[in-house]
Amino acid sequence: MNIHIMTLFPEMVMGGLNTSITGRAISKGILSIEAVNIRDYAFNKHNSVDDYPYGGGAGMLMQAEPVYQCYQAIVDKIHTQSDASSELCAEKRKPRVLYMSPQGKTFTQGMAEELAQEEELIFLCGHYEGIDERVLDEIVTDYVSIGDYVLTGGELPAMVMVDAVSRMVPGVLHNDVSAEFESFQDNLLEYPQYSRPEIWHEKQVPPVLLSGHHANIEKWRREQSVIRTAKNRPDLLEKANLTEEEKKLAKSVMV
Amino acid sequence: MNIHIMTLFPEMVMGGLNTSITGRAISKGILSIEAVNIRDYAFNKHNSVDDYPYGGGAGMLMQAEPVYQCYQAIVDKIHTQSDASSELCAEKRKPRVLYMSPQGKTFTQGMAEELAQEEELIFLCGHYEGIDERVLDEIVTDYVSIGDYVLTGGELPAMVMVDAVSRMVPGVLHNDVSAEFESFQDNLLEYPQYSRPEIWHEKQVPPVLLSGHHANIEKWRREQSVIRTAKNRPDLLEKANLTEEEKKLAKSVMV
Repeated sequence: MNIHIMTLFPEMVMGGLNTSITGRAISKGILSIEAVNIRDYAFNKHNSVDDYPYGGGAGMLMQAEPVYQCYQAIVDKIHTQSDASSELCAEKRKPRVLYMSPQGKTFTQGMAEELAQEEELIFLCGHYEGIDERVLDEIVTDYVSIGDYVLTGGELPAMVMVDAVSRMVPGVLHNDVSAEFESFQDNLLEYPQYSRPEIWHEKQVPPVLLSGHHANIEKWRREQSVIRTAKNRPDLLEKANLTEEEKKLAKSVMV
Repeated sequence: MNIHIMTLFPEMVMGGLNTSITGRAISKGILSIEAVNIRDYAFNKHNSVDDYPYGGGAGMLMQAEPVYQCYQAIVDKIHTQSDASSELCAEKRKPRVLYMSPQGKTFTQGMAEELAQEEELIFLCGHYEGIDERVLDEIVTDYVSIGDYVLTGGELPAMVMVDAVSRMVPGVLHNDVSAEFESFQDNLLEYPQYSRPEIWHEKQVPPVLLSGHHANIEKWRREQSVIRTAKNRPDLLEKANLTEEEKKLAKSVMV
């Protein structure tokens, strides 16, 4: 998958994505991520991309044209670089452009899985007061919000989404690591985990984990997940596949 | 406000926070942000902070002791540096420690406002499979999740929360900039905005915005906000203060 991030702060975005799992996927060639500076498409001598909003009001707005030119340059590159057999080229389909905005649909793990199927993804990061509505109308395919809170710009949300989506691209995670979030995907929270030493600050590791009895360990962990979900996120339980016994356990915690 | 971020990737965290509004607040001295490397508190010669989980399973776990030592160093620093009149010192109160986890309460703008009242905040970023449960029990005061999706580590969520919280610390935003999110705070989405030129790709700026008639402009913007919220986030409308006429407008869009 090729990810293109349109931003005024390319260093910030790349710095936050080069570490860890996304970093390794990039060096393995499974993933490419580029941050494209919208400012490079400014059309005035000051390299500015912002202007006052019509009708007045606080702050500045990103203008339509530099955003559009930046987008066009990315689309041209995609069509030049991808081989002729590529779906996107064959159908002359526009790539998906995600705009980070509180207007958007709330981002979820299901959306991450769906986006991971795309060959190319473009993220558009707003800044200042926002972006001229007309260019959004013209190029944006998805408005997405990572949550109900106000942030300075679209960069952090884009980084969050790129991280969540990249993890779902086949080959990015090792199989053993991907097991890590199975429990979350079954709509249950993680069970508690312990590492050495056996006793720390007078707190002992639960004896079952030292027993070597795998079936008992699995049972204990599953119970802990059910208990935690019932306590902290009862809303998730409806979608979890619980046995009758587990439903009783959950109920006993919630009362 | 002083923010301390416990992490294995201090450069990543600081790189993402030095730009923009948080960066300016730091240079104005209203805000201090430090990223503390948990690895500096490793107690073995390899500087490793992870170990296998008891009971088996994929991946590695962050051990209790380095996390605890890192936390203690931050607490000691807070008590040494803050003046005697500081509330936190006077009451020998523990600072709040936020652990980024899908277990947590979902982060909201209201939580950002509440956290902005604190003098000191500590963010704990997990990595690998998580952190030994015993140290979490001992130091964490708040479990927080930024949304229902799986991320590689706690760094991006911490950066998101630091950005949202910092914006609410008095003096961080100019008054004129803070107006920017008033509409979101009234539980309505932003109205569309336009900048020069008047005609772009044959799309004209709505004439009312060029009229210079402030009352009409305000009315149009408010209507647009109501329409957008009704279309995209009807769940927010319940909490918005709508007039009877606005309720009718919202209803007509939702049908």
